[in-house]
Amino acid sequence: MKRKCIKCSKETGIYLPHHRLALCQEHYTAWFESRTQRTITEFRMMTGSDKILVAVSGGKDSLSLWNALVKLGYDADGLHINLGIPEYSELSQKKTQEFAERVGRKLHVVEIKTDFGRTIPEISKIERRPPCSFCGTLKRYFMNLYAKKGGYTVVATGHNLDDETAVLMLNTLNWNTEYLARQYPVLPEGDGLAKKVKPFCKMTEKETAFYAVINGIDFVEDECPFAVGSTTIIYKKILSQIEQKFPGTKIRFYSEFLAKMYPMIRGSREAPKIGKCNMCGEPTQSSICLVCRMKIRAS
Amino acid sequence: MKRKCIKCSKETGIYLPHHRLALCQEHYTAWFESRTQRTITEFRMMTGSDKILVAVSGGKDSLSLWNALVKLGYDADGLHINLGIPEYSELSQKKTQEFAERVGRKLHVVEIKTDFGRTIPEISKIERRPPCSFCGTLKRYFMNLYAKKGGYTVVATGHNLDDETAVLMLNTLNWNTEYLARQYPVLPEGDGLAKKVKPFCKMTEKETAFYAVINGIDFVEDECPFAVGSTTIIYKKILSQIEQKFPGTKIRFYSEFLAKMYPMIRGSREAPKIGKCNMCGEPTQSSICLVCRMKIRAS
Repeated sequence: MKRKCIKCSKETGIYLPHHRLALCQEHYTAWFESRTQRTITEFRMMTGSDKILVAVSGGKDSLSLWNALVKLGYDADGLHINLGIPEYSELSQKKTQEFAERVGRKLHVVEIKTDFGRTIPEISKIERRPPCSFCGTLKRYFMNLYAKKGGYTVVATGHNLDDETAVLMLNTLNWNTEYLARQYPVLPEGDGLAKKVKPFCKMTEKETAFYAVINGIDFVEDECPFAVGSTTIIYKKILSQIEQKFPGTKIRFYSEFLAKMYPMIRGSREAPKIGKCNMCGEPTQSSICLVCRMKIRAS
Repeated sequence: MKRKCIKCSKETGIYLPHHRLALCQEHYTAWFESRTQRTITEFRMMTGSDKILVAVSGGKDSLSLWNALVKLGYDADGLHINLGIPEYSELSQKKTQEFAERVGRKLHVVEIKTDFGRTIPEISKIERRPPCSFCGTLKRYFMNLYAKKGGYTVVATGHNLDDETAVLMLNTLNWNTEYLARQYPVLPEGDGLAKKVKPFCKMTEKETAFYAVINGIDFVEDECPFAVGSTTIIYKKILSQIEQKFPGTKIRFYSEFLAKMYPMIRGSREAPKIGKCNMCGEPTQSSICLVCRMKIRAS
């Protein structure tokens, strides 16, 4: 069934059942950017005077985020972390650099091989565990480090509603209250940690993909080869099944969690004590941070 | 792969991956009944001095529950509610009556047609809503009424882990804290409400089915015709998919909810004020109870 754009009545291919919203390409872009701004405002993620570092992998979410933030007038540079995964990492860096030129903003590049000393596949062999189990830790470490080095006040990541609900479902099925108490789209600055925000937390994966395609953003289409078959991807598929049966489930699951459960769980827990790593001085809950411990094992 | 019973080393067809447990038929029955008793003890559901009314539909769960309770030495009679659904209700009543003779216990029969004045399909037409939306309310009403009439101290229902986790998932995806605050396997007596317990809350559907088959219990195999395609059944399928990928998810989801979340949610809410229905005198939160309101509309 062809629907008409609610703004200009043009026939449109874009229909969002969970919002009961039909839009043409042009008005879709406007809607998407304005919804991003509304999310930023709702959670007080950033203002015009912030200096923002966008973590850009080269995928549709992070490049769309960078694009939207620049279009919304934010002072936003990029940070790309090259993981050293053959083919995938080269392509990711290339597309990110091309996009940086297109938006005319500065791009910082971290090479895990150089900055840490080993590539992700190499670390995986040394650690004898799958890359996904430590890759996030490493990425957060370098994001935080580069934000402070460059004087950035906010780190923005492209996590979308599908990412957030998959993790929320996993943490809910296990009732992992420690993780649930941290699942909020804004983590404040403090204890040597930069402020971190997720302006796409209320956008589905489909929505960011539409935005990227409509705006001619050239992104890496493949998933990270290590993520294939991951727990998160399994839960994404399950949530999409539920969403198809009951449109609106994902956004309700996430929004109601933030409104009702997050404050309750958060309030029931003491804040963790954050100190400084004895080796690198970066924030950690123990005497030596996870990254330095990996460095020791890798040396 | 053929596994051996951990008790007697007989080769066995029964393997429970979430418990990593292999048992022959005889030891399965012993394990199942002892687990039922452990659940009863854990939640202080009943003691040997209680007079128990088991709600028996004629399905595998409720007949297995009746069987297990009698074998465990409890003083347990049955209550069957005939819903007036053509064929399904006649067969259900017949199998329940046959089973009552087998265990040699008293069976009370409520006929919705007589006790309420209309059958479930008739009420559905009058109410213009699906039977599942009010059938539970009616059943709870008559269970409570007959428990008090007969001097029973506890009403036991055959809800299993699959039932409980499907409802838990639904209430969690919506973060319905009102319902979550009541999702406990024991509801205490008070305000004119009989004590209600679910001794199979930690048994999967497969486990009760094994028990029924092994013990030669002749139960109604079909689902209620109105329940086909219901929301609960959709969530049961989804949870079974997850369980297959990650064995133990259901029992962890449920047990950790009871241990960690239930007290938190419960503690954050005021207990609802229960009064008496102006028409029938039964407990209700408003002036006229839901059943009497349906009676008015049906008259």
